[in-house]
Amino acid sequence: MQTVVHLLSGDETEQETALAIARNLLDDETNRIDDVAVVVQADGIAAIDATDGNVEQVRALLDDGVAFKACRNTMDMMEMDESDLVDGVETVPEGAVEVTRLQSDGYAYLRP
Amino acid sequence: MQTVVHLLSGDETEQETALAIARNLLDDETNRIDDVAVVVQADGIAAIDATDGNVEQVRALLDDGVAFKACRNTMDMMEMDESDLVDGVETVPEGAVEVTRLQSDGYAYLRP
Amino acid sequence: MQTVVHLLSGDETEQETALAIARNLLDDETNRIDDVAVVVQADGIAAIDATDGNVEQVRALLDDGVAFKACRNTMDMMEMDESDLVDGVETVPEGAVEVTRLQSDGYAYLRP
Repeated sequence: MQTVVHLLSGDETEQETALAIARNLLDDETNRIDDVAVVVQADGIAAIDATDGNVEQVRALLDDGVAFKACRNTMDMMEMDESDLVDGVETVPEGAVEVTRLQSDGYAYLRP
Repeated sequence: MQTVVHLLSGDETEQETALAIARNLLDDETNRIDDVAVVVQADGIAAIDATDGNVEQVRALLDDGVAFKACRNTMDMMEMDESDLVDGVETVPEGAVEVTRLQSDGYAYLRP
Repeated sequence: MQTVVHLLSGDETEQETALAIARNLLDDETNRIDDVAVVVQADGIAAIDATDGNVEQVRALLDDGVAFKACRNTMDMMEMDESDLVDGVETVPEGAVEVTRLQSDGYAYLRP
């Protein structure tokens, strides 16, 4: 099974829940989760900012195989470029299109 | 691909994100999104109120083919009728049933 | 059709909306909804606490066939056990895995 976590809230509790859920999906003892993606857009982008407090947690998830995909539409609006994000985060043209594409490829959707 | 955006929050930032995401799905340069629906219920209904600040944005999305579907259960509870909504918004008996139906028809789900 | 409602917010309005939506799915006059599950984790767990204000509402939903599934990872973190929850609530090892599993079994997803 595959899961996409949609992270688009500026609320720090929701951001922490999203990252904790990505970790719990990885740690599932029944090993039924094959892929975890986190698509990040809107105010959620703060959670993957290279100067943000979640850097270590995001880096550990990347190291363990979680794909982070940041929305370039959001980054353009916020005048950010890839160097502003945690190293290893990919970008996609539009987060909502990517989440649609992943679901159409069979990913389950979680919105913490 | 088809996408349903579920708008049920009274939070103005979440409402603005939902409308912006509907716009970005329409504007996708790869033209992979065929249909966008916005199902509106609970406190989200304020975003499609005919006297609300989002009127122009909702009308532009309607003009460009986005289907807006307001929950009549919510409208009954709030003592609203169709004349209280932006012109062109449809109604459905229950938003949650409509979102279920659309997903069972293959729509991806986004909850901004 | 089948629907899973994901309840993970500590916000009382979002919790009330989630329970009201579970009720509205049950009450659908077109009888197209066969199963409703509510997966509860993170701060959402307060909504099914046996000492919480929603007890009567949760009990009535359970009586009417809604399956409530509480995340044991969350319960462990909050040092709760089953006796702290409304009687009849099941537990699952990890809520996010359960939501993924249900979607992969064909459930639609709602995140109020």
